[in-house]
Amino acid sequence: MYQTILNHIARDIELNEREEQEFCSILSEIKLNKKGVLINPGDLVTHEYFVVKGCLKSYYQDEKGNKHIMQFAIEDWWISDFEAFFNQTPAQLYVEAIEDSNLFGIEKNALEELYKRIPKFERFFRIKTTSAFVSLRYRILSSLQKSSSKQYVEFCRAYPQIEQRVTNYHIANYLGIKPESLSRIRKELAILNSN
Amino acid sequence: MYQTILNHIARDIELNEREEQEFCSILSEIKLNKKGVLINPGDLVTHEYFVVKGCLKSYYQDEKGNKHIMQFAIEDWWISDFEAFFNQTPAQLYVEAIEDSNLFGIEKNALEELYKRIPKFERFFRIKTTSAFVSLRYRILSSLQKSSSKQYVEFCRAYPQIEQRVTNYHIANYLGIKPESLSRIRKELAILNSN
Repeated sequence: MYQTILNHIARDIELNEREEQEFCSILSEIKLNKKGVLINPGDLVTHEYFVVKGCLKSYYQDEKGNKHIMQFAIEDWWISDFEAFFNQTPAQLYVEAIEDSNLFGIEKNALEELYKRIPKFERFFRIKTTSAFVSLRYRILSSLQKSSSKQYVEFCRAYPQIEQRVTNYHIANYLGIKPESLSRIRKELAILNSN
Repeated sequence: MYQTILNHIARDIELNEREEQEFCSILSEIKLNKKGVLINPGDLVTHEYFVVKGCLKSYYQDEKGNKHIMQFAIEDWWISDFEAFFNQTPAQLYVEAIEDSNLFGIEKNALEELYKRIPKFERFFRIKTTSAFVSLRYRILSSLQKSSSKQYVEFCRAYPQIEQRVTNYHIANYLGIKPESLSRIRKELAILNSN
């Protein structure tokens, strides 16, 4: 199980055996059943999580009970309520498993200590955070400039694995459209593709 | 002028004199008049920019000519078309001065070299990027959960200096509401505050 996260890290930084062991020693293993909740609103968020296997979502539930999906996470992705994690404020999001999932958690203080002992991790998390930041800006920009149909096509292209693993409801919610609209878009695209 | 950016950096990492000089040697100074454009859609974005003095905005202009403000930047903030800068894809945004502005630019390759020579900058930009990422998530969440009136109050609290320096039109656009709605909100708040 450790090899998955070590391979993930090796794409950006090189660790020797001692550093790998030191890193693995601060990880906690978490198993979550489908629909299991990792974070609830109001929680103190002490960890961020790496997905070894499975699929999760983070979402905000408004006063009327409507859910708004902020993020999906599958293998090799990181998830948490990041605002709450980094600023140490109470969680505002739910983080919940869509499938049975295996995760690694890293505790905030242990991570800060890791930066001191193995500064290469500054580089690793700089690269990961930059990529998350850019994706989020791209998502905002995409919602401003593209039709729902184009956004759906882009979503499928960017996240082909997610598109096959989550429900229509989830994708529609993430794109900020109604499930009926997504069904209509899919039908239109199917007709276009068959021509 | 260099002292401003060195003070900004000293809040997160400690540099010795040689490192300060090395860092300053890769900065380019830019002066921009009010309404001057730093980045146009389609540009290759080679730099990110630190604001020494002034105020800028980045915005997307849709097919109908409507502008959507992505970001403001005043003293001590960083601005660019970050997607274009990090992914080396053509710019989609305009970056434009709202006031006469003095900036420092850092070129992407020079920054990558800097990481190799002074790895402490990995830490500095990890912290800055994390903070930008978290602010962006907070902005999305805020737009889901709060009334326009509450969003405006939060904006003024979070960015008091910006609120005084940009027009009503700018703030309304950033919050995704009409200028008339912002005027109404301001009147309502003035009445509430006078009671």
